[in-house]
Amino acid sequence: MLTVQQLKEIFQQKREAIIEDWKKFIEFPSVSAKPEHREDCRNCANWLAKYVEKIGFKSEILETTGNPAVYGEYLTSPDKPTILFYGHYDVQPVEPLEEWTVTEPFKPVLKGDRLYGRGAQDNKGQTMFALSALQTLIERDLLKCNVKLLLEGDEEIGSGGLNDSLEKWKDRLKADVLMLCDTGAIAPGVPTITMGIRGIFYLTLHIEGLKHDLHSGQHGGMVPNPAMELVKLLATLHDENGRVAVEGFYEGVGEISPEDRALANKHPFDAEEYAKKIGAPPIGGEKGYSPVERRGFRPTVEINGLYSGHIGEGSKTIIPRSAFAKLSARLVGEQDPEKILNALLKHFEKHKPEGLQMRVDEIGIGGPALTLSSQAPVIKEAAQILQQIAPEKEVAYLWEGGSIPIVAKLAKASGGYPLMVGFGLDEDQIHAPNESFSLSQFEQGFLYAAMIFQHFSNK
Amino acid sequence: MLTVQQLKEIFQQKREAIIEDWKKFIEFPSVSAKPEHREDCRNCANWLAKYVEKIGFKSEILETTGNPAVYGEYLTSPDKPTILFYGHYDVQPVEPLEEWTVTEPFKPVLKGDRLYGRGAQDNKGQTMFALSALQTLIERDLLKCNVKLLLEGDEEIGSGGLNDSLEKWKDRLKADVLMLCDTGAIAPGVPTITMGIRGIFYLTLHIEGLKHDLHSGQHGGMVPNPAMELVKLLATLHDENGRVAVEGFYEGVGEISPEDRALANKHPFDAEEYAKKIGAPPIGGEKGYSPVERRGFRPTVEINGLYSGHIGEGSKTIIPRSAFAKLSARLVGEQDPEKILNALLKHFEKHKPEGLQMRVDEIGIGGPALTLSSQAPVIKEAAQILQQIAPEKEVAYLWEGGSIPIVAKLAKASGGYPLMVGFGLDEDQIHAPNESFSLSQFEQGFLYAAMIFQHFSNK
Repeated sequence: MLTVQQLKEIFQQKREAIIEDWKKFIEFPSVSAKPEHREDCRNCANWLAKYVEKIGFKSEILETTGNPAVYGEYLTSPDKPTILFYGHYDVQPVEPLEEWTVTEPFKPVLKGDRLYGRGAQDNKGQTMFALSALQTLIERDLLKCNVKLLLEGDEEIGSGGLNDSLEKWKDRLKADVLMLCDTGAIAPGVPTITMGIRGIFYLTLHIEGLKHDLHSGQHGGMVPNPAMELVKLLATLHDENGRVAVEGFYEGVGEISPEDRALANKHPFDAEEYAKKIGAPPIGGEKGYSPVERRGFRPTVEINGLYSGHIGEGSKTIIPRSAFAKLSARLVGEQDPEKILNALLKHFEKHKPEGLQMRVDEIGIGGPALTLSSQAPVIKEAAQILQQIAPEKEVAYLWEGGSIPIVAKLAKASGGYPLMVGFGLDEDQIHAPNESFSLSQFEQGFLYAAMIFQHFSNK
Repeated sequence: MLTVQQLKEIFQQKREAIIEDWKKFIEFPSVSAKPEHREDCRNCANWLAKYVEKIGFKSEILETTGNPAVYGEYLTSPDKPTILFYGHYDVQPVEPLEEWTVTEPFKPVLKGDRLYGRGAQDNKGQTMFALSALQTLIERDLLKCNVKLLLEGDEEIGSGGLNDSLEKWKDRLKADVLMLCDTGAIAPGVPTITMGIRGIFYLTLHIEGLKHDLHSGQHGGMVPNPAMELVKLLATLHDENGRVAVEGFYEGVGEISPEDRALANKHPFDAEEYAKKIGAPPIGGEKGYSPVERRGFRPTVEINGLYSGHIGEGSKTIIPRSAFAKLSARLVGEQDPEKILNALLKHFEKHKPEGLQMRVDEIGIGGPALTLSSQAPVIKEAAQILQQIAPEKEVAYLWEGGSIPIVAKLAKASGGYPLMVGFGLDEDQIHAPNESFSLSQFEQGFLYAAMIFQHFSNK
């Protein structure tokens, strides 16, 4: 078994070669959102399949309804645990191009400690350190657990292709642990376990019925105002303590365990710093919970957009013919998205205005939540390993707030317990111009991946 | 004194000549909203001044900060009452041009009983019948009261020019009655006295403070949502009975007198017909009042526009950085616009969200209300005359709901009691393509004007 120290030395020796491979990976403009990059996505998948083969895996291109996925298998023994490693080779669009000041998006360059280019971090960088770690172990015949790779090409557009194939691939994906490195760390060098991602659904709520905009003088006081009625309906969504006032909404929301509460609040949350950065203090949501608890363990209903009537300059004194709000809900724990959505629809029905029509459309269910427990064996083991590679830091537990809908589905399909440790930082500017990933975070990822695969090998 | 029957005969004799003059008036593209029509407005004013001179008035072009106004004077004796007749020669823009299917906007044509063209009714038509009536009386030396004409050129853009000049022109405008024909009738042939126009002010209310849109997963439940906070604030504006729940808002709102209530409700309001036409039943506003009472005698606060965040297709799960609402209030009776505006601003202040910024801009005060009494002598006299010219119909009393801000100001500056009888109908499509005015309504206007000026002449 290699020690952390030995792995550090190996990384220094392989550094140049790894960067070369990482750059080649970035050079494919595998933008899933743009039809004109469809062929680039396939080329990237083909290259990746060969690469995976080269480092010792049996590989295969799996066709989907979207871009192809790359599947790799390194099977040792049925007695050993099976790790399904999930990643994605597709990247976000690069516009606005003129803001790429360091380099062009698909011409990666190393500048100081950082490699710049689209996908440098998300998710080509974080996939590359895991593959390099696996290669390192295979070369030395130290990989004794079963490893399956699933690297998809539609993550940035909602994982439709993978989602459509899950049922079909169920057996092939069977695993004990679902490992991914598509998340972030709370600060440079602080190993961070992502403990929860929230579920999500969204919809658009319309109040309508007037044949056209009306003169607010000739009709004001006579006709119900769709904008005002929408506002009144939306104002019923929360009570005075910020709690969602929808019957049945909290079904499936668990209490926070004392252990998780302690871990979530361990790294002090700097409210003043937050207010300075964001523009407002972290006083939204439900009373009685700390900001990180509200983000990680509590569900929300938010307005994402509002529209009615005249929104140009100056006044236009009309009663608008209609009004709409775009809403999304973030879910936690065992909340069933369909059930909660129905509870919300029932609430609308109960509070809908008289004399006007209510209509809901653009309904989308992203997926359920994953709220992990710090007491789960895999999480405890990962924490120990992370502590080893960064003894001077305290491991952070991050209940995230965001949603990666495919993860919960993949966990369910594969049976693997999710292990989400990623090394991304805010300053990496993923999804934005000048995306980059620092070599020190990359190296920490490499150490983590090598150590955790060794750990499973020894089980 | 000419009888109604004699006036009808005179109208038939003069019909062709009147239509010729009316057409000439319409041919000027005096669109006040378009800078490129500035010269056309002046040409129209010059023509109108000469026209007024021709029919027997002393006329003058009065310069303003906007388009010039045409002033005319026909003074008889200080012992006789003075009538200030107000009208406007400017018209609304004509776009969309392709929807003018009967004729081009400034090439008036007679088709059946209707003259088509921009301004055919509003306000060139309703000014023309008054001028024709005055000419008829002057020709026969029957005009014995003092008549002042004030025909402005900025009405369609808020009467800024006139408004700026009121103080300066105060003495010149002194009158006992302020007469205007810029209003409508409730149905063809039904003489209608407009008894009230509501006051108005408007503003834009912003909730802001976030530096940019935020990820609704990473920040949902942590940060206050500007759109949700705006909605909550707006929902405090009314109580459960539709009454405006703003302290001090009803200061100056009088009780409806039994006479006015009876008159306002005399012409049965067809709620079903209204719902069919508008799309919603007349159930907005305050409980405890009939629809016409709510429109004519009660103040309102309405949302005219709402905006926040993502309003394009599909979902974008953000917490929007800011949100705004455009609001307007309609005022009645003795409500002081500034005072009521301040009451509303105080209400906002009291209910403003924590942690975010509130800002109010685009404040505009149109003017106070005019709520007339059916018991005022001028109104009673006008009603009798209207009954004479349409004995088979019942005179209607219309508490309008809309606002003509300059009227209240002009009434105050001149000292004249407002007498608002107009003959416009919905089907005239003022402000829209294919504006027209029927000759039968025009004739009724001619009869009314001739009779009322004779009435004042005999006082």
